[in-house]
Amino acid sequence: MLPTAVMERAQAEFSDFANTGMGIVEMSHRGKVFTAVIQRAEANIRQLLNIPDDYLVLFLQGGASLQFGMVPMNLMLPGGFAEYVNTGAWAQKAMKEAKLFGEVREIASSADKAFTYISTPTTFDPAASFVHITSNETIQGTQWQSFPTTSAPLVADMSSDILSRNFDVTKFGLIYAGAQKNIGPSGATLVIIRKDLLTRAPKNITTLLRYETQLKEPSLYNTPCTFAIYMIALVTDWILENGGITAMEKTNDEKAARLYAAIDNSNGYYTCPNAKEFRSKMNVVFRLPSEELEAKFAKEAEAEGLSGLKGHRSVGGMRASIYNAIPLEGVDKLIDFMNRFKAANS
Amino acid sequence: MLPTAVMERAQAEFSDFANTGMGIVEMSHRGKVFTAVIQRAEANIRQLLNIPDDYLVLFLQGGASLQFGMVPMNLMLPGGFAEYVNTGAWAQKAMKEAKLFGEVREIASSADKAFTYISTPTTFDPAASFVHITSNETIQGTQWQSFPTTSAPLVADMSSDILSRNFDVTKFGLIYAGAQKNIGPSGATLVIIRKDLLTRAPKNITTLLRYETQLKEPSLYNTPCTFAIYMIALVTDWILENGGITAMEKTNDEKAARLYAAIDNSNGYYTCPNAKEFRSKMNVVFRLPSEELEAKFAKEAEAEGLSGLKGHRSVGGMRASIYNAIPLEGVDKLIDFMNRFKAANS
Repeated sequence: MLPTAVMERAQAEFSDFANTGMGIVEMSHRGKVFTAVIQRAEANIRQLLNIPDDYLVLFLQGGASLQFGMVPMNLMLPGGFAEYVNTGAWAQKAMKEAKLFGEVREIASSADKAFTYISTPTTFDPAASFVHITSNETIQGTQWQSFPTTSAPLVADMSSDILSRNFDVTKFGLIYAGAQKNIGPSGATLVIIRKDLLTRAPKNITTLLRYETQLKEPSLYNTPCTFAIYMIALVTDWILENGGITAMEKTNDEKAARLYAAIDNSNGYYTCPNAKEFRSKMNVVFRLPSEELEAKFAKEAEAEGLSGLKGHRSVGGMRASIYNAIPLEGVDKLIDFMNRFKAANS
Repeated sequence: MLPTAVMERAQAEFSDFANTGMGIVEMSHRGKVFTAVIQRAEANIRQLLNIPDDYLVLFLQGGASLQFGMVPMNLMLPGGFAEYVNTGAWAQKAMKEAKLFGEVREIASSADKAFTYISTPTTFDPAASFVHITSNETIQGTQWQSFPTTSAPLVADMSSDILSRNFDVTKFGLIYAGAQKNIGPSGATLVIIRKDLLTRAPKNITTLLRYETQLKEPSLYNTPCTFAIYMIALVTDWILENGGITAMEKTNDEKAARLYAAIDNSNGYYTCPNAKEFRSKMNVVFRLPSEELEAKFAKEAEAEGLSGLKGHRSVGGMRASIYNAIPLEGVDKLIDFMNRFKAANS
């Protein structure tokens, strides 16, 4: 879901952008018009996240799944190792790919409690090529609430919570995020990389897969997904016009607080398996008393326009994804439905 | 440039696709609505190119530049070599990346005549891991007019002329094409691969970069660029509604014939450096008597709405890209301008 104002603007100018007689989706990625758009998208992201000049901001392709490979391909030192924190499904996907490029040390894991919390390491090896974390686990519904300080470059997959809250970019060597949660539509992957890491990659990897390739003309070594970048410009315009990340975070906090309160105050009808201090503010997972009731809940919610509430097939249960574009009213509507469903089915 | 009818339809349903109240750009790639769209895009491509069932049709990300790496990464046999035909700038980019994964044998090159023709090999080594060609060189303006028969798998970069003419897919082991010329907008890369080649890849490459990964759920191993795939469905609908590839080819032949005739009949005012039998029907390159006149030509053409006529900076001169979406009238308008410009400046 994208903000309504963004969708309306994109539709209005779809076939005729800025009186050019052409749609942005048709334009060359090297033309003046698109150049202004990508520059605006980058400037907006820099402003929103307060990104210093010694970081490159890139819009690549391939999603987090390609970054799972590109990160170790570029950052693993010869004969080196990387430290990974195993917080759930997405962290494990990242670890699997990293093993192709060097030693992966799982320095913390919350597997012992079915990933219902974040096991936060207390020490990090400064000799590691990098340390990798997954800031938010969409399937398990857990989230890092604050980020560690490491001397090895800290790398984070922030696909599902970037732009939802304030954090200090300078703690990180590299941040990556598929656009399709809070940033825009699918088709672009945001990568924020500290420039000193660009030259670390070995020489024997495909040019497009080397971050350093993007230094000369950021995001434009080859044709990027121009329309997704344009939508990112619109979404980040919208965030800036609506109070920036601080305002997003305030609303996200309130949305999550209301929804978790509805769960916790249901006398055990709705239950969230996750430790309170690690509950995700983006993906709220909860169970009902039986799988039959969960199926009924999903079906009746859908009929009221509350779609996508089924949990991931690997864990079952329910999951409410309340990204930036979901307004407070959307959460209230869900809570109202939950209360009515409970009254009718308990 | 995309067909006007396609742009109008995409704009009309941008915020409310098929009465869902949501835009396709907002929808999950696993939902029913998008599933129908991607299936239609695939079915259309299969119908247009007459692709047999033993080929997979994929919509990937990363453009031809990523395929330059993925092809040898997946298809180079251990200790093997691949045969490449050097036809110009794009062929050379493909060769550069392939060298990272094995021996590259340049079995033909048209460098001796500044790439003004296609040097077509007469023999191919059956022991090659694969044979690679570039069907159309956008910068030099040359094009393979027919394709060779090889016993090693034939691989083609068809980024700039796929869907412009009929050809026999079964001659090829793998075809790839960035979408942004004839297929749709940027953000998707069409890959057509014979299924027996899927298992050839070594085990040590990133999951997303293995073609075999896509076998289970084609194009959906991770989130693809959904909007680009939707636009491909619309563009291929449009081609089918307008007589299919046969009709496209007929119009493309006529467009190219008229434009080359205008050049050849200009008494040397306009000149095309390329051998007649290898001239591209997609990218018509030509020179004027001086660089000053070329600059003036580009500027005055732009003022008449004929944009993008400057040749690539590496070769200079002029280039008219006349992809499928350019109607015959667009070419006639250019010819009319060329005739007037010549009269006023010679």
